[in-house]
Amino acid sequence: MSNTAPAADHDNPLKKKLREVIFGTETPAGRHFDLALIACIICSVALVYLDTVAEIHQAYGTWIYLLEWLFTLIFTVEYGLRLYCSTNPLRYSLSFYGIVDLLSILPSYLALFFPGANMTLVIRVLRLFRIFRVLKLLRYLSEGNMLLRAMLESSRKVFIFFFSVSLIVMVLSAVMYVIEGPANGFTSIPKSVYWTIVTITTVGYGDITPQTSLGQAIAAFTMLLGYSIIAIPTGILTAEIGQEINRNRDLRRCANCLKKGHELAAHYCDNCGSELEAPLSESTD
Amino acid sequence: MSNTAPAADHDNPLKKKLREVIFGTETPAGRHFDLALIACIICSVALVYLDTVAEIHQAYGTWIYLLEWLFTLIFTVEYGLRLYCSTNPLRYSLSFYGIVDLLSILPSYLALFFPGANMTLVIRVLRLFRIFRVLKLLRYLSEGNMLLRAMLESSRKVFIFFFSVSLIVMVLSAVMYVIEGPANGFTSIPKSVYWTIVTITTVGYGDITPQTSLGQAIAAFTMLLGYSIIAIPTGILTAEIGQEINRNRDLRRCANCLKKGHELAAHYCDNCGSELEAPLSESTD
Amino acid sequence: MSNTAPAADHDNPLKKKLREVIFGTETPAGRHFDLALIACIICSVALVYLDTVAEIHQAYGTWIYLLEWLFTLIFTVEYGLRLYCSTNPLRYSLSFYGIVDLLSILPSYLALFFPGANMTLVIRVLRLFRIFRVLKLLRYLSEGNMLLRAMLESSRKVFIFFFSVSLIVMVLSAVMYVIEGPANGFTSIPKSVYWTIVTITTVGYGDITPQTSLGQAIAAFTMLLGYSIIAIPTGILTAEIGQEINRNRDLRRCANCLKKGHELAAHYCDNCGSELEAPLSESTD
Amino acid sequence: MSNTAPAADHDNPLKKKLREVIFGTETPAGRHFDLALIACIICSVALVYLDTVAEIHQAYGTWIYLLEWLFTLIFTVEYGLRLYCSTNPLRYSLSFYGIVDLLSILPSYLALFFPGANMTLVIRVLRLFRIFRVLKLLRYLSEGNMLLRAMLESSRKVFIFFFSVSLIVMVLSAVMYVIEGPANGFTSIPKSVYWTIVTITTVGYGDITPQTSLGQAIAAFTMLLGYSIIAIPTGILTAEIGQEINRNRDLRRCANCLKKGHELAAHYCDNCGSELEAPLSESTD
Repeated sequence: MSNTAPAADHDNPLKKKLREVIFGTETPAGRHFDLALIACIICSVALVYLDTVAEIHQAYGTWIYLLEWLFTLIFTVEYGLRLYCSTNPLRYSLSFYGIVDLLSILPSYLALFFPGANMTLVIRVLRLFRIFRVLKLLRYLSEGNMLLRAMLESSRKVFIFFFSVSLIVMVLSAVMYVIEGPANGFTSIPKSVYWTIVTITTVGYGDITPQTSLGQAIAAFTMLLGYSIIAIPTGILTAEIGQEINRNRDLRRCANCLKKGHELAAHYCDNCGSELEAPLSESTD
Repeated sequence: MSNTAPAADHDNPLKKKLREVIFGTETPAGRHFDLALIACIICSVALVYLDTVAEIHQAYGTWIYLLEWLFTLIFTVEYGLRLYCSTNPLRYSLSFYGIVDLLSILPSYLALFFPGANMTLVIRVLRLFRIFRVLKLLRYLSEGNMLLRAMLESSRKVFIFFFSVSLIVMVLSAVMYVIEGPANGFTSIPKSVYWTIVTITTVGYGDITPQTSLGQAIAAFTMLLGYSIIAIPTGILTAEIGQEINRNRDLRRCANCLKKGHELAAHYCDNCGSELEAPLSESTD
Repeated sequence: MSNTAPAADHDNPLKKKLREVIFGTETPAGRHFDLALIACIICSVALVYLDTVAEIHQAYGTWIYLLEWLFTLIFTVEYGLRLYCSTNPLRYSLSFYGIVDLLSILPSYLALFFPGANMTLVIRVLRLFRIFRVLKLLRYLSEGNMLLRAMLESSRKVFIFFFSVSLIVMVLSAVMYVIEGPANGFTSIPKSVYWTIVTITTVGYGDITPQTSLGQAIAAFTMLLGYSIIAIPTGILTAEIGQEINRNRDLRRCANCLKKGHELAAHYCDNCGSELEAPLSESTD
Repeated sequence: MSNTAPAADHDNPLKKKLREVIFGTETPAGRHFDLALIACIICSVALVYLDTVAEIHQAYGTWIYLLEWLFTLIFTVEYGLRLYCSTNPLRYSLSFYGIVDLLSILPSYLALFFPGANMTLVIRVLRLFRIFRVLKLLRYLSEGNMLLRAMLESSRKVFIFFFSVSLIVMVLSAVMYVIEGPANGFTSIPKSVYWTIVTITTVGYGDITPQTSLGQAIAAFTMLLGYSIIAIPTGILTAEIGQEINRNRDLRRCANCLKKGHELAAHYCDNCGSELEAPLSESTD
């Protein structure tokens, strides 16, 4: 685990190959490794999930226990390899993904020494955060890129929208608390805020419902408000996605007649018939 | 049921006519046959549905029984005719629709020999799959085509969206299970996943609701998340449908001045006034 | 109530004036009459609604009774005037609106002779249909026109969408009935259809909820389906409304430079500065 | 508190500086003051909210009481400064925001003399209206401006939509009241209106649910209606926001080649390469 210099590291072909496979996503092998890793993460998390079902725990508890150790071993080997082939093992082990990778294997080992059931579960759940590593893959999908850009572009508008909505929620919660009161389930304003969000998002559990006529009238108003303002983030995002699609089409220019705005699926310029280069964002896909 | 050669078959005018009516959708007779078949399928399925209502079963059970046999006979005759007029009866009987057609008549005959009530119902429900034959008709509606194309175009983006949402659902489910626990109805993580989906899709049955303050806060966050991310698939699909409409308009080009982008309802070029040909996708309608 | 000839009728200035006010909406007086009528309809319907609240009925029952007779008298006078000033009283009295107008005053008179409480209520509720007369006014709002056109344009696509959804609902209902069965509230397939619609539209009453694990999994799938396909009608309508707005802008052409596509609020051509004529659909507003 | 002449007031540099900070939002100091004020309002409202939770009231009641007096003092000083530096103190104190500012400090002082618990709470809740002062800030965000313009542009269409929906709700409510009746929870038509709104907005509490088959069929129709008409306001707003984005892009014109329609983030004309001026609506941001 010596912190070797990058120059010397560069000459070791095994390390370089491993780094390409484990950290890289440009080569087919690197992508297959990532897909296999995702499968392992999903399976190991599925085991944790199924183990919480009492019947499954009783019937297959031992098998799940063995499989979990198998996955823990796989992740341990993977963590070791990442440390070995990283150009800078210390920086990796202290990076966000390095800590997540360590946290995904620690719980099983800690459970050997601290057999408290609840605590084991809480730390095992931390393995879930490893799924976020999967999100790294999304970057290589042009569609994911486009969605992310559209969301970033509209984030300020959406923030203003949610700020306005939360002001409305705060006012409505206080009004409902005063009208309905603790007797009808609105025991405090924070509980009333919970009710208002349940109502304005049109979830409507029905665990707390207004009982007075005035309360029901304000509840009806809240519902109609929530029902209609859902149009606003949708409108914002739709407009941005439409812009993104047009922008993506504009990136390609016919080398012959200079026409812009070709569709992403087009291979030939629809004006002069000369061949187009492949779309920029999909060339790495 | 001899597997005659297509050439000899081509000369039999009755078979050819029958094939046009039963398998084809180009002639008026073929389309009327399909509509009559849809009516029969819907009626026979409606009978199965109504028969499960205890009061209707007691009052009209015998009539429903007789009507079901009538529909079974109709479907049997139809199946026989399909076998008879098909250019390749064996291939038809082993095709997806051939098996669905057979499965839609088998349950009634099987019920004669195996009178177990539950089993009969399960296999009778299989008749429902015949409805999918109806979907064949949708192909001939240009609007259906446009919707399907828009959905296919956006399927990758929507898949990425649902992949991200399912990651969020998995994390939130584990967190809610740890916070609320079995005492408040979150008896296992799969149950917690069910609750998270009920909440994030804004369905909100209310059969499981958070009881702790922290759980209610996370539930409120889940609702707001579900309420706002519904904008994403809507935005994707809206942008694609808008593109499809523009693409459809671009398919028609004035033969005189070459202007593109006429509205679907237009009969004359709005630039030079010469008559336009009918829209491509609606010419068969 | 003599069926006078239109020619003779044309000469009577009182009838002509009354017809303009009562039937017409072009003159200010005609529009004020319509607005007053809407107010009367809404008030009289509000009375019927409030009278069903037990406390209000006990406290103000007599006042409501008197006010209802006042509105009945107003509507009777209005009906008489319509008959009097119509160019063809017989055709009016047999037209859709003529029958609705008669039905709106009949219940109160019938209640004198048939004092059965329930029956009176049912026929009084019919007065609600008079509200549809109000919808006539919407025609004169260009925005209403635009919305109606967009909805008509997208009606075929939306129909195909709802046809596909109802097929999915039918299949899911049968599957849920077989899985959950009468013991868990799915007493018949029609009840199961009701549950499926409650779930797929994300309403989620919670009066019937799946109890088995498989049922909850299919319920979760149904919710995600309903949550995502809501994007389809939204996408269709949004694209059509966008088209309508562009079409409306194209209706106005600058008389000087022939530029199209001005905004509805523009008074001068943004290309050459010459004055534009008023928008077509708003000129009658 | 003498109503000095604006001319004399103009010469006092302290007052002028204070006015810039307290009332203005153009200078950095003015904007920092507004942000600090928002923080104080949110904290003081959060205290009122938390104080209604019984456990928190018992544990930290004294601390909350002290903090509330601190915020009351801050707001009192702020009110005094506003009166002092205003060019017209009387007009300020009678303006909408002046009254709101006074109402936000009065409750705490009134509570000294009238210790009635409920009344104190009701008037303390009035402080919430101060949050609306925050909305003033939104004006300076170009995105907020764009959203507001899009909402104003679509307000007539949305009004027509809600008018039509309320007519449908009224008819459906009366029909459901007649079908289900008081025995199934539909005790009056106003209650039935509440149920219809709960259903059509897809909230679905489940506190009132239809029990008869006909009622469930109409409920299913109501849900499908609500599920599909949500597309209409979304479509309206999306089209308007798309128009607003295009309009905003058209506001910037290249000074060299006169090309319009540059993206908001662009710094150079994409046609001739000359530098563009900053977007209009963001220049004050």
